[in-house]
Amino acid sequence: MRVLRRQTGNFLEDFRPGHVFRHKGGKTVTEGLFTTFTEFAMTANPLAKNARYARAYGFDGLLCPPGLVMLVAFSQTVEDVSENARANLEYIDMRFGAPLYVGDTVEVETKVLGVKSSASRPNLGVVHVQSTARKNLGAGDEAIVLTWQRKVQVYKRDEKAELHAGDVPPDRVECELVLPAYSRGQDYKALAHLSSPHSYFEDFEPGTRIEHSRGRTMTSEHIHLTAVLDNTSQVHCNQFMIDQDPKQYVGGQLIIFGGIPFVLCLGLSSPDVGDNALGDVVYPTGRHTAPLFAGDTVFAATEITGKRDYPGRDDLGVVETRLLGHKFERAAGAEASADAPAGWKKTQIFELERHIAV
Amino acid sequence: MRVLRRQTGNFLEDFRPGHVFRHKGGKTVTEGLFTTFTEFAMTANPLAKNARYARAYGFDGLLCPPGLVMLVAFSQTVEDVSENARANLEYIDMRFGAPLYVGDTVEVETKVLGVKSSASRPNLGVVHVQSTARKNLGAGDEAIVLTWQRKVQVYKRDEKAELHAGDVPPDRVECELVLPAYSRGQDYKALAHLSSPHSYFEDFEPGTRIEHSRGRTMTSEHIHLTAVLDNTSQVHCNQFMIDQDPKQYVGGQLIIFGGIPFVLCLGLSSPDVGDNALGDVVYPTGRHTAPLFAGDTVFAATEITGKRDYPGRDDLGVVETRLLGHKFERAAGAEASADAPAGWKKTQIFELERHIAV
Amino acid sequence: MRVLRRQTGNFLEDFRPGHVFRHKGGKTVTEGLFTTFTEFAMTANPLAKNARYARAYGFDGLLCPPGLVMLVAFSQTVEDVSENARANLEYIDMRFGAPLYVGDTVEVETKVLGVKSSASRPNLGVVHVQSTARKNLGAGDEAIVLTWQRKVQVYKRDEKAELHAGDVPPDRVECELVLPAYSRGQDYKALAHLSSPHSYFEDFEPGTRIEHSRGRTMTSEHIHLTAVLDNTSQVHCNQFMIDQDPKQYVGGQLIIFGGIPFVLCLGLSSPDVGDNALGDVVYPTGRHTAPLFAGDTVFAATEITGKRDYPGRDDLGVVETRLLGHKFERAAGAEASADAPAGWKKTQIFELERHIAV
Repeated sequence: MRVLRRQTGNFLEDFRPGHVFRHKGGKTVTEGLFTTFTEFAMTANPLAKNARYARAYGFDGLLCPPGLVMLVAFSQTVEDVSENARANLEYIDMRFGAPLYVGDTVEVETKVLGVKSSASRPNLGVVHVQSTARKNLGAGDEAIVLTWQRKVQVYKRDEKAELHAGDVPPDRVECELVLPAYSRGQDYKALAHLSSPHSYFEDFEPGTRIEHSRGRTMTSEHIHLTAVLDNTSQVHCNQFMIDQDPKQYVGGQLIIFGGIPFVLCLGLSSPDVGDNALGDVVYPTGRHTAPLFAGDTVFAATEITGKRDYPGRDDLGVVETRLLGHKFERAAGAEASADAPAGWKKTQIFELERHIAV
Repeated sequence: MRVLRRQTGNFLEDFRPGHVFRHKGGKTVTEGLFTTFTEFAMTANPLAKNARYARAYGFDGLLCPPGLVMLVAFSQTVEDVSENARANLEYIDMRFGAPLYVGDTVEVETKVLGVKSSASRPNLGVVHVQSTARKNLGAGDEAIVLTWQRKVQVYKRDEKAELHAGDVPPDRVECELVLPAYSRGQDYKALAHLSSPHSYFEDFEPGTRIEHSRGRTMTSEHIHLTAVLDNTSQVHCNQFMIDQDPKQYVGGQLIIFGGIPFVLCLGLSSPDVGDNALGDVVYPTGRHTAPLFAGDTVFAATEITGKRDYPGRDDLGVVETRLLGHKFERAAGAEASADAPAGWKKTQIFELERHIAV
Repeated sequence: MRVLRRQTGNFLEDFRPGHVFRHKGGKTVTEGLFTTFTEFAMTANPLAKNARYARAYGFDGLLCPPGLVMLVAFSQTVEDVSENARANLEYIDMRFGAPLYVGDTVEVETKVLGVKSSASRPNLGVVHVQSTARKNLGAGDEAIVLTWQRKVQVYKRDEKAELHAGDVPPDRVECELVLPAYSRGQDYKALAHLSSPHSYFEDFEPGTRIEHSRGRTMTSEHIHLTAVLDNTSQVHCNQFMIDQDPKQYVGGQLIIFGGIPFVLCLGLSSPDVGDNALGDVVYPTGRHTAPLFAGDTVFAATEITGKRDYPGRDDLGVVETRLLGHKFERAAGAEASADAPAGWKKTQIFELERHIAV
């Protein structure tokens, strides 16, 4: 019997600058997906929890929060771009567009912008891509829901393979946050008790850092969550692969998909920062600064870095923030500090520039 | 940079008798939520599983079982009432009202009835509250779905803080089980094979104790389940907090949210007791008698304590029961008994007075 | 107080050849159930992921993939047939019928075909059954969705009980795959990028074995997944029962419900074999050849064993395959082989004859 060893996903030598992937699958947002990912992260914005509130604000129903939009869109690109990746390095210029609802179908395309070898590790290199997610192609409400660039560290299939190294410029993608208009007749005040009284535009003062009080311990649930997103990257779910050569992999164990702490930090911050937001506008940059593993407890903080008007809307402003995620690791002998109690050190795991429409 | 340490939730000194919380968020029941919580507990009542059956009995579609109604309503009160609690002490006079369906939106208010310091532990005290959950506010089918009181042991922020100790009387809340009328034209017999032949009104004899045969081992899934309910109490999900001072917390580890064994016991009992019930009427009292941790296996038993007519309905009766939950713990050297095999002891974890419309 | 120890499920001595169980409960497919079970297994067929694609192919919306149909239908039979089973031995002649959608309600009947004692283990024997799952009974689209036989190893309640040993012939059940017609006006090519370019009828060559590249580590999530399916077999979820007499149970620990690796192998194979399939036609035979436990990583391979025309359809063919599942176990001192790296051995866990409409 002839044996074929099928490889899913691409390796570093397979990427060519300028190539466009039209990703397979596509994904219809069900109520199952909506619930799992809106709520595992403790999202507090009533637009994503309370259909009465969302309709009063002019949305068609429960609104997919930014973290869910990001997870669904991003995951569609994993098989082609990062199934054989070691780590995701950087998010760039992630901009939100039309609102995403239960029942919408998302499909994604990705253009390869750059391919580069690694100076120090001959079996690795960096791929730079630009992706755009559209909903309901061919229907009346077809629209872009998210566009972003990212850089990802990808393994070679064959260490000696020659690369298609080089760069092409990104496409210009029209993608701006679509928000329902302010409705003069609507009694928004009657709903005000459903969100925090301390997270309106006026409450944010640049130069402030808010330490969010909640922590959330991740478990091996991450394997299931990652699969449900169609994220097929093997470093999140294939323990046998890790066991064969642990040194090859970050931390020598299954690493939690970066989308999980990304969305968890958004959720942990939401009682203080996000629950009066109508939407997230743009994430100019973001990166994972340390890996997350099952058993770690995630915390978040938000720095208010600026404020500006929302173009064309008197009732809204844009709050510019830096969202930070961290965990604590045991450090024998460490003394207590402002950051961590004795015997522990604080490790930053994530940072994201985040501009919010409030 | 100015640092704000935001505290979510209230501490003992923040509660004032007579104060009413209109809880944030609210929650629309999605099919994702419905499936997760109806089924993790092995609920056997076809009203919650089989839409054909539920419609034949006059419901609009799949019916949220009592356990799900309780979990959704209760969890909405956690941030304000028990995010900083040590343990939930007692459920009192929990009464069911209108049926709850997928698509309904639940919002909850809570009145503080009493605040009391603890004689023995200066950093703790007891808060007594009364909560009422309504669905679809402002719509034609607005209705109360659940009302209840509870007592909860809450930490102080500052051990020396003065309390607003005292009591106010509970409000009178009109909340009675709403059931579809008996329909003379409906062939209920044609559906009888879908539920147990041994759980009709005539089958229950006061003075009987039914030991339900199934057990269900809980895993670290409880962290995820609790988050999906918007229950933000840190003792269920923040391992780092526990690790810093384990003695401060029940069992020195993450404790499973009491709503989980509550609903699990309802589910484990349902093949014998609940699967011919049209609804649960009232839970006069209930309490957790021991904590539950990941790895424990939960069992349940039901004592039949009484029977009475259902006012205004010839086809129904009320069965009065005591639902009991227990687990087994290793006990080196313990001899075999009627309760437990050698080397184990039986620990009761939960009890609930439960009146069921059958 | 009089104590009743209720037993759920039947033991070996309770089964009589010819008896028909009309199973309790029934199950309406919600979007929560759909998402959990379509996606935990990494199913890649766009018919189950992308509603735009499914409708273009003539389906009413997202299609339940074969694995989900099997899990829902099979699980309905567990309480009566295998709640007290040790292991499922064999699947026989599992044939698919009408498409199953979200919102459909499944009800199942099972006929006992045979009862046999075990020669070597006096407390065990084999039950042979034939089950048929129908959807939407009494409605206009009532239809058979699945029919199958299985053999299962069941415990006796009482080792000395006499059996109703014997056999009756299976019923003839009309159940053929129902597929939407080929539509001349539909531009299928415009959707071709949503599935693999390498899994069309012409791509399969009998005599080929495809090693699928992905692995998926199972965790204790299996307890939750099994409960959500209403599968109440205690060997999957009752750790206390196992702890009392581990030798009595396969592997001395909680065994993962066979439906999980069944569906996981279908999912792992789907990028290479199943994502251009319109449906699975029949599984003539299948069996679990080794148990699966939490922590194991599952892999799959597909052997192409034959090809034939699809009766009455020029645009389709039937690909005959053998789907194989395996895991790796540590084997101290084992040398590297074509099958496994040094220190490991490969263990086959599952095999299924599978005929697919492509």
